[in-house]
Amino acid sequence: MPPVAGVRIAAATAGLKKSGERDLLLVALDAGTTIAGVLTRSRCPSAPVDWCRQALPGGSAGAIVVNSGNANAFTGGAGDITVRHTVQAAARLLGCAESAVFPASTGVIGVPVGPDHIAGALPGLAQSLGPAGWEAAADAIRTTDTFAKGATATTVIDGAPVTINGIAKGSGMIAPDMATMLAFVFTDAVLPASVLRPVLAAAANRSFNAITVDGDTSTSDTVLLCATGKAGHGAVADHRDRRLGAFRRALDELMIDLAQQVVRDGEGAEKFVEITVTGAQSARAARKVGLAIANSPLVKTAIAGEDANWGRIVMAVGKSGEKADRDRLSIAMGGVEITRDGQLVCGYDEAPVARHMKGREIGIAVGLGVGRGRATVWTCDLTHGYISINADYRS
Amino acid sequence: MPPVAGVRIAAATAGLKKSGERDLLLVALDAGTTIAGVLTRSRCPSAPVDWCRQALPGGSAGAIVVNSGNANAFTGGAGDITVRHTVQAAARLLGCAESAVFPASTGVIGVPVGPDHIAGALPGLAQSLGPAGWEAAADAIRTTDTFAKGATATTVIDGAPVTINGIAKGSGMIAPDMATMLAFVFTDAVLPASVLRPVLAAAANRSFNAITVDGDTSTSDTVLLCATGKAGHGAVADHRDRRLGAFRRALDELMIDLAQQVVRDGEGAEKFVEITVTGAQSARAARKVGLAIANSPLVKTAIAGEDANWGRIVMAVGKSGEKADRDRLSIAMGGVEITRDGQLVCGYDEAPVARHMKGREIGIAVGLGVGRGRATVWTCDLTHGYISINADYRS
Repeated sequence: MPPVAGVRIAAATAGLKKSGERDLLLVALDAGTTIAGVLTRSRCPSAPVDWCRQALPGGSAGAIVVNSGNANAFTGGAGDITVRHTVQAAARLLGCAESAVFPASTGVIGVPVGPDHIAGALPGLAQSLGPAGWEAAADAIRTTDTFAKGATATTVIDGAPVTINGIAKGSGMIAPDMATMLAFVFTDAVLPASVLRPVLAAAANRSFNAITVDGDTSTSDTVLLCATGKAGHGAVADHRDRRLGAFRRALDELMIDLAQQVVRDGEGAEKFVEITVTGAQSARAARKVGLAIANSPLVKTAIAGEDANWGRIVMAVGKSGEKADRDRLSIAMGGVEITRDGQLVCGYDEAPVARHMKGREIGIAVGLGVGRGRATVWTCDLTHGYISINADYRS
Repeated sequence: MPPVAGVRIAAATAGLKKSGERDLLLVALDAGTTIAGVLTRSRCPSAPVDWCRQALPGGSAGAIVVNSGNANAFTGGAGDITVRHTVQAAARLLGCAESAVFPASTGVIGVPVGPDHIAGALPGLAQSLGPAGWEAAADAIRTTDTFAKGATATTVIDGAPVTINGIAKGSGMIAPDMATMLAFVFTDAVLPASVLRPVLAAAANRSFNAITVDGDTSTSDTVLLCATGKAGHGAVADHRDRRLGAFRRALDELMIDLAQQVVRDGEGAEKFVEITVTGAQSARAARKVGLAIANSPLVKTAIAGEDANWGRIVMAVGKSGEKADRDRLSIAMGGVEITRDGQLVCGYDEAPVARHMKGREIGIAVGLGVGRGRATVWTCDLTHGYISINADYRS
């Protein structure tokens, strides 16, 4: 991945992972960097999420501090103190306001981190900050991810070249005792926080909010988008400005790429599944139906079994609670229409669908026939691997 | 199970199950029988559910016809015709109105049944109607249930003895291509449909609406309660009448018994789990939190792995969307308090909890500390058996 002007990174081992692997990332952001974030809707959020929620309205970023190995969630007042010490140390080292420091943590829930454990490791990290090393950065935020996740894109705003880099970790709330999907996206675009926020919210809806591995929501989900303002384009004051078209498309694609990497690394996943819902009452309704299908254990186990079991898709559409009409429902798998107007297609031949189900990329299309809303969501299958990872393991 | 005055039953083989096992049940109800029902909230309900929904407001029952082996769901207009022919045949045979016949079907989704397949088998069944044979009745409505499910209770209304018999099938939407939880409850109590309805709704909320195996909702879920009016007590015109106290308690217990039998027969289930939530904003909120825990694949796999992984319970409470306060949350397993006021209990010893997790009956208690709402829900663990049954099987 190329450098992003105004962003310096450093990763190291701070002893939070028992394995002794990299577990701490410091990102330094030049003065003038703006930030927007999307945080978990969990009612039991981690201490770093609480901090970010109150700091994000400021819109300015000087540092991001991410640790893996410990989620600092459900750690009571002790967790808040650890966050405060970490933030104070980063602000002092990098010369920025405390409200411009954004912490994120992922790992075990319910085990306090010493108040100065992370703060104590920051001076060493600050000395090794540099523009390269994105692989190491993506590696330092992993927990049980089987590969480091990153993506880069170049685009233009108002004729000037702009770079976007993103790193992510997680695959739902995936691992034994581990929690969190984290993603950090950096660009040199010149955009105020007031523009970043709606742009990020829209992209998060189309990417991270459209994936599911197991339907379990982490206490720590965090997506941050930082803009350093080093690119050469003119001021953009409104997120609906047409000059942002290419940038928004590039950001969407990059975040969908990261989100799909998370699903492909889902626990025990053997197949990647794309579900497209059309004809819903609204885009929101379409996504709800898509996620009802994507989260159904019966649909996911049928896919694992390479079984074109469309009856289970009917069931999942029905349970979503969104408007549907039994007699208008159409279902296709692998591009082959199976049902139309609420009944099996006359002369339906399962052979090509059965072949499609044996592949590693499964496509499901559902038409509700009650409106014009559409959405695409992504998930993986539910296999013995998921049970082994989560049940056979003892904490 | 004892007879219920006014109820006659007959079960037989009608060739809907490939195995050649019993698959058809006819229940004849004496004139004057009242009925109330609770049906699936699925937006893609089966044809029999559609019929029952429009017939139930009449409040009178003369016959119930239940088949297994085919759900008659997602069968379009053909499914409606099959229901009409079945209902007409039963009404003619038993001399009741068509609107007093209640059909229910469970089995494969999307495969039409011949319009007169069930109707043609009814005359033979009508000849063998009798007060005994409840075991055979419970057996005839099974799909992949591993045991037939029934319960009986005796109670009093206004000093007169009253009997309640119930049969049920299913364990969530459990089996390959199969859909449905069905339950049929019969009593000789003298109660108008206007009293039966709120009594059944309350009992269903505390029993069948408080269980989950996999979170997947059937297209055919149906619970019917019939009162034949043969018991000797006086008229009861209001469901809040104090003379109904013992009856309501007996009905609650009987329906909870049936619902728990369904969970114990959950696909691949090795452990029965009771989750009690207290201190919620309302009883409804408490049940939503309980079901979020009960439906979490990470909680269910942890239980399968005999892992006292309370961090996953925190996660599930958070994702439920109901009000919770991180710093007031308490969690106990097997009666041992693990967290209090949002933190691990000082000196927490996992040994007794680990012993509890090795048992077959798991108890989880969660205190939210934000109100007085409480609820209890029941589920089972998520094991390799569930994956094997649903993925390894090919339809």
